[in-house]
Amino acid sequence: MTPPTKAIATTAPATVTDVAKLAGVSVSTVSRILNGSARVAADKREAVEAAIQKLQFRPNLSARSLRSGSTATVGVLTQDLQSPYFTGGTKGIEEGLAGSGYAPLLVPGHWNPEEEFDRARLLMARKVDAMIILGGSLQDAQVAEMARQLPIAITGRQMRAPNVWSFHFDQVEGGRIATRHLISLGHKHIAHIAGPMEHPDAVERKEGYLKAHREAGLPIDPRLIVQGNYLEEGGFEATRELLTQGTRFTAIFCANDQTLWGARLALHQQGHEVPQDVSLVGFDDLPQCLYMTPPVTTIHQSIQEMGFAAARAVLAALAGQPAPEAELPPLRLSLRGTTKPPQAA
Amino acid sequence: MTPPTKAIATTAPATVTDVAKLAGVSVSTVSRILNGSARVAADKREAVEAAIQKLQFRPNLSARSLRSGSTATVGVLTQDLQSPYFTGGTKGIEEGLAGSGYAPLLVPGHWNPEEEFDRARLLMARKVDAMIILGGSLQDAQVAEMARQLPIAITGRQMRAPNVWSFHFDQVEGGRIATRHLISLGHKHIAHIAGPMEHPDAVERKEGYLKAHREAGLPIDPRLIVQGNYLEEGGFEATRELLTQGTRFTAIFCANDQTLWGARLALHQQGHEVPQDVSLVGFDDLPQCLYMTPPVTTIHQSIQEMGFAAARAVLAALAGQPAPEAELPPLRLSLRGTTKPPQAA
Repeated sequence: MTPPTKAIATTAPATVTDVAKLAGVSVSTVSRILNGSARVAADKREAVEAAIQKLQFRPNLSARSLRSGSTATVGVLTQDLQSPYFTGGTKGIEEGLAGSGYAPLLVPGHWNPEEEFDRARLLMARKVDAMIILGGSLQDAQVAEMARQLPIAITGRQMRAPNVWSFHFDQVEGGRIATRHLISLGHKHIAHIAGPMEHPDAVERKEGYLKAHREAGLPIDPRLIVQGNYLEEGGFEATRELLTQGTRFTAIFCANDQTLWGARLALHQQGHEVPQDVSLVGFDDLPQCLYMTPPVTTIHQSIQEMGFAAARAVLAALAGQPAPEAELPPLRLSLRGTTKPPQAA
Repeated sequence: MTPPTKAIATTAPATVTDVAKLAGVSVSTVSRILNGSARVAADKREAVEAAIQKLQFRPNLSARSLRSGSTATVGVLTQDLQSPYFTGGTKGIEEGLAGSGYAPLLVPGHWNPEEEFDRARLLMARKVDAMIILGGSLQDAQVAEMARQLPIAITGRQMRAPNVWSFHFDQVEGGRIATRHLISLGHKHIAHIAGPMEHPDAVERKEGYLKAHREAGLPIDPRLIVQGNYLEEGGFEATRELLTQGTRFTAIFCANDQTLWGARLALHQQGHEVPQDVSLVGFDDLPQCLYMTPPVTTIHQSIQEMGFAAARAVLAALAGQPAPEAELPPLRLSLRGTTKPPQAA
C-alpha cells in the first residue's frame, strides 16, 4: 500500500566513486579533476582520465555540472543526530550524494517546529543548493514556501508542491503487518507499547494494531495498550507497567525497535524469556536488531533507501532533470528470533 | 593516567535553556529576544525577561555576544554520522552549545585524510565561527594551520598549538583495565579482537592488552589475537575464526563495543553462552550496552563529556575567555553481566 514515490532507476551508470576506485584515488581527487583544479599530481590525473574512459563515465550529476554560484552543498535537516533511525536516513543520503560533487551539511531540529524552522533558515543562509528534510514537524506551507528558493526533498509525509519531492511509508500498514504476524502465530493477548502521540507515525502504527485486531475479530483490551516514548527507557518502563498490572499478555508489538530493546531488558530482569514466554515485534529494522540474541523480528522500513531516493531527487532537480519515477520497497516483516506461538495458558 | 584536559567548571551559571524552561518558551525564542529581533510576541518577551531576572542570567556566551560578522555556527567535522561512538560525541557538543546562540553544522570525514581536509575547508568556506574535529586523521600541522583562522577543538589526540584545544583519553590504560579485569577473574586464555591498525586508538588498546599480560606474567598466545574492523561484522567474523581454529580461550577483550556485539552473536549461534562459557569485555560504553541481555561489561569513555568540553572550549575562545582548566573523568570499567570466572577446564 506504499504510494508510488520518486526514486532513482535501478541500474545506475558509473559514478565518481567507481572512477575513484578504479583509478586508486579518492573521490575528492576525482572531483577536483572534474572541477579543473590544479591541485592534483599528474600521475593521479592520468589514472583518473583512464578510469573515466574505461567506465564510460559521464559526469552529468558530477562536480562539472554544479551551477555557477553553487556552494556544492546539500543541507540536511535531521531531527536527531543520535537516533539510529535518523542516522539510517543520513547514510542513504550520503550514498545518494556520493560522487555527485555535493557534500551534505547537517543540522538537527529535534522535532521542535521553531527550532526546525530556524535551522532550515540557517541552512538557506549558508546558501546550500538544495535541502533534504528528514521527518519533523514543519508545516507543509512552510516547506512549500522555502521550496520557492531551492529544491527540497522531505521524508515521512506526503505533500504536493512545486520543487518538493516527498517520500513516505504507510505506517498503518506496518502496524497491521506486525500485529497480524502475532495473531497468525496464535496470540490472542497482544500488548502494544505506543510511540509519542504527537508523532503521526506513532498514531498510525497504533491504528494498524487496532485494525489487525478488528480484521481478526479479536477483542482489544485497553489495559494492554501502554505509552512509550520511542526510546529504550520508555519501552523498559512500559513493560514494567504491563508486568505490574498483571493483565495477561503473551506478545508485545513495540512501536519501534528502541522500544523493543527496553522491553526486552525489563522482561529479562524479571526472568521472562523471549520468545518462550513473550513474543516481541519491533518496527524500523535498525541494523542493531541483527545483533541481539536472539535477533529481533521487526517491520523493515527502507529508511536508507528513502534517504538515497531523497538525495537523488534533489540532485536531479539541481541538474535540471526530472526525478525518475520509481517505488520504494513496501514495508515488510523481517522474521527473526523473537516471536513464536504462545505457550498453552 | 588521563592527561589533564581543558573543560568547563562543574557548576555552570544559568543558560538560555534554563531561561527558556522557566519562561515556558523555546530556546530559539530566547535567542531571538537576546538578538533584539522583533519577531516575538509581547507576552513571551515579558516571560523571558522575568525569567532572565529571576535566574540572574548573564548572556555572556549567548547570542548577544556573537561577534559581528558571525554566522552563529560551529562547524563539526565528524568521521561517521552513523557510528554510535561519534554520535555520542555530537550529543555532548549539542549539549555544550545549547543556549549559546551557536548552532552546530556537521560534515562527515570518513577517516579519509583528503576528504576530511576538503570538508574542513568546506566548513570554513561556509564561514563557521569555530570548528570541532572529532577524531580523524588530519595532520597536526594541518589543524594548526586552520587554527590561524578560527578556534579549533579536536578530540582523540594530544596536540599543542595556538587556538587549538585537544581532548584525549589514554587508550593503552583502557585496554589494560579491560584485560586486567579478566585476569583478576582467573582467565588465562584471553583472546583479543583488535580494531583497524590504521587507527591509533586500536593500536593503543591492543598495547594495553599486551601490557596487562606482561604485568601479570601471563604468556601471550599470538593465535588468540585476531583482526576485527571496529564493526559488528568484523567481531562476528573474528569470533568465528577463533572458534574454527580451536585454540582454547575463555574470554575475549573486544576492541570496541560494536565488535563485542558481533562476537556475541557468533558465540550465540554456535551455542556458547555469555558469560557462562565465554566472558566478554568491550570498549566505549555505548548506550546500547545497557540494553543487551545480559548488559555488557565494557570500558567507559566519557565521549559525551568530551564533546561537551570541546564545545565549551570553543565557546570560551569565541567569547575571548580562557578555556577553564578541568579534567575529564578517567577511563573506568563499567562492570555488568558479560564477565565471570572461567569454568574449570
